[in-house]
Amino acid sequence: MKLPRAAPFLTLSLTLLIALAAPAHAQQDRNLAERLGYAKDAKLLIVHDDDLGVSHSVNAAGIAALESGAITSASIMVPCPWFPEIAAYAQAHPDADFGLHLTLTSERVYVKWGPVASRDTVASLVDANGYLRQDWPDAAQINPQDVERELRAQVEKALAMGVHPTHLDSHQYRLFENGEKIFAAALRVAHDYKLPLLIPKEWVDEHPYLKSSAGPNDILLDRVVSIEATVPPSGWNEFYVTALKNLQPGVTEFIVHLAYDNDEMRAMTRERDSWGAAWRQRDFDFFSSAQFRTLLAQENIKLITWRELGKLAIDKN
Amino acid sequence: MKLPRAAPFLTLSLTLLIALAAPAHAQQDRNLAERLGYAKDAKLLIVHDDDLGVSHSVNAAGIAALESGAITSASIMVPCPWFPEIAAYAQAHPDADFGLHLTLTSERVYVKWGPVASRDTVASLVDANGYLRQDWPDAAQINPQDVERELRAQVEKALAMGVHPTHLDSHQYRLFENGEKIFAAALRVAHDYKLPLLIPKEWVDEHPYLKSSAGPNDILLDRVVSIEATVPPSGWNEFYVTALKNLQPGVTEFIVHLAYDNDEMRAMTRERDSWGAAWRQRDFDFFSSAQFRTLLAQENIKLITWRELGKLAIDKN
Repeated sequence: MKLPRAAPFLTLSLTLLIALAAPAHAQQDRNLAERLGYAKDAKLLIVHDDDLGVSHSVNAAGIAALESGAITSASIMVPCPWFPEIAAYAQAHPDADFGLHLTLTSERVYVKWGPVASRDTVASLVDANGYLRQDWPDAAQINPQDVERELRAQVEKALAMGVHPTHLDSHQYRLFENGEKIFAAALRVAHDYKLPLLIPKEWVDEHPYLKSSAGPNDILLDRVVSIEATVPPSGWNEFYVTALKNLQPGVTEFIVHLAYDNDEMRAMTRERDSWGAAWRQRDFDFFSSAQFRTLLAQENIKLITWRELGKLAIDKN
Repeated sequence: MKLPRAAPFLTLSLTLLIALAAPAHAQQDRNLAERLGYAKDAKLLIVHDDDLGVSHSVNAAGIAALESGAITSASIMVPCPWFPEIAAYAQAHPDADFGLHLTLTSERVYVKWGPVASRDTVASLVDANGYLRQDWPDAAQINPQDVERELRAQVEKALAMGVHPTHLDSHQYRLFENGEKIFAAALRVAHDYKLPLLIPKEWVDEHPYLKSSAGPNDILLDRVVSIEATVPPSGWNEFYVTALKNLQPGVTEFIVHLAYDNDEMRAMTRERDSWGAAWRQRDFDFFSSAQFRTLLAQENIKLITWRELGKLAIDKN
C-alpha cells in the first residue's frame, strides 16, 4: 500500500494548486495586519528608536530600552562616532531588531561626522570641512549617484562590522522628501540587500513617487507617529497617551528618540532644544513607564518588529 | 640740530652691528631658558594636556584646567568627533595655548575616527572599515607621503575652523618613533606652517634622526615627563610630587591627560585602564590641587607656554 506515504505529497500538491489558482490580487487584498498573521483589525505597533551610534548616551538608553522591552526596534547611524559600540552590541545580540538609519547629514554643531564612502567620491554630500552637510537647503545640489554610493558604503560597513540589519530608514527623512531620484536610489539599495525600507502610506499624498517608485512587495506602513517640538515638556506623556488611546487598526510606527539627559548629551545638543537631551530623556521615561505598559494592555495593542515585516519582503523584491 | 632725532637710528644700528658681529654659535651657546629670557638655571615647566577633541569629557576638563591655570597648554586632535566643540572654543579664545595633536591612529575600540584627508588618498593609514589604524605593528606599511598629506589636511582643517595653533605634537608619539621619513614629513609640515614641533632632547639617543633632521631653529626641549601605567593609582600624586621636587633647570614638559571620570569617558575607554577615565580624573585632580600650586612656589618653578617657545622658532625656519 502506497497511499499513506503518498498522502502528504498529495496534500502539499493540493495546497500548491490552490495557491497558484488564487487570483494574483488576493494577497494584496489582505491588509498588512492579515499578511502578518493577525486579525484584520489588529492594532500593531512598532516602537522604534532612532539615532543609535550618535553618542554613548543614545546607545546606552537604546540598549536599556530594548532589553526592558520599552521599545521593539531601533536603527543605527553608521557614519557616527559611537557606531563601533553599537555594532559590537548588535553582533553580540543577533536577535535584536536593528535597522540602519541611513545618514546623509551631520546636523549638529559641536559633534560632527563625515561620509563612510571616500570623501572625494561623494563630493556633493560634504561641506567645506569634509563633514556631511548640516542641512540641504537646496536638494538640487545633491547628486543622487553620490547618495547611492554613500548608502551602499553604509550598508557594506555595517555588514563588515557585524550588524545584520532588519530594515532601512532615513535620518531626518532626507531620502523621502527630496525628490524621486534620491528616493529611487534608496529603494535600489533596499531591494539589492533585500531589506524593507520605511515608507508610510500617509506620506504618499505629499510625495506620490513614494508609491509609484515602490515595487509590489515594498511595504507601506499604515502610519507613523513622531512627537514634534510644538509639544511642551508638560504635555509629553499626554501626547503619547492620546496617540495610544486613539490608535487605529493596522501597523503604526512610533518614531522615538531615546537618550539620557547627561553631560555628554546636553553638550552635543546644546545649540537647540529640539531632539535635545531633555527631549530624549522624556521619551526614554515615557516608554520605560508602567503607564505605557498598562495602555498597551488596555487598548489591546500588540508590539511587533521590523523583522516580522521583513519576512513579507525578503526574497520577493 | 638733528642729533636727537638721529639718536634712535644710531642706537638701533649699533645694536644691529653688534648682533651681526656676534659669532654664529653665540645664540646656540645660550641655553633654552636664557633664549626665553630667563636665568640660565631657571626651572621652566609646560603642563600640557593631550587629546582635546576626542570626547566632550576631555574637552570640558581641559577647558576647566586651562581657565583655572592648572595647565598652561593643550593640543587638539583634528580627526576626532568633538573637534568642532574645541575648535569653537579655540576660535573664541585666541590667546589660549592650543597646539595640534597630530593624529594618525584611532586606538580605541568603541569610538573611532577616520582621516581628515579623503580616504582614498591616504590608503596606508586606514583599516578595512575606513578608520585610522588602531595600531602600527609594522611601520613599513605606512607611506610617508600619506602621512604628510594627512598632516597637512589636519593643519588646514584646523585653520579653516578657527584654530590658530601655537605648536605641533604627535598622538601616541607615532611621528617620532617610526623612522626618519615619517619624522621628516612632520618636520616639513611644521616648517611650512612656522610652528614649533615637540622634540625632547632625551629621545635623540634612541632616535638620532630627531636631531639630525632638525634645522638650527628647531627647539629641542630639555625633557618630557609622562606618567606610565606602571604607577598604581595610590602612587599618582607621589609620582608628580617627586617629579616636581626633583625638577632640573631647563624646559620640561609634563604631558598629562585630563578628563572627567563619567559615563561617556568610562564607556569610551572601557577596553583597558591605561589612559582611561579614572587615570584622566586623577591627572585632573592633581593639577587642579592646591598641592601642585604650593610645590610650584616652593620649588621656584615657572610655568611657560608653547607660544613663548614658538617666538624663538617662528619666521626662522
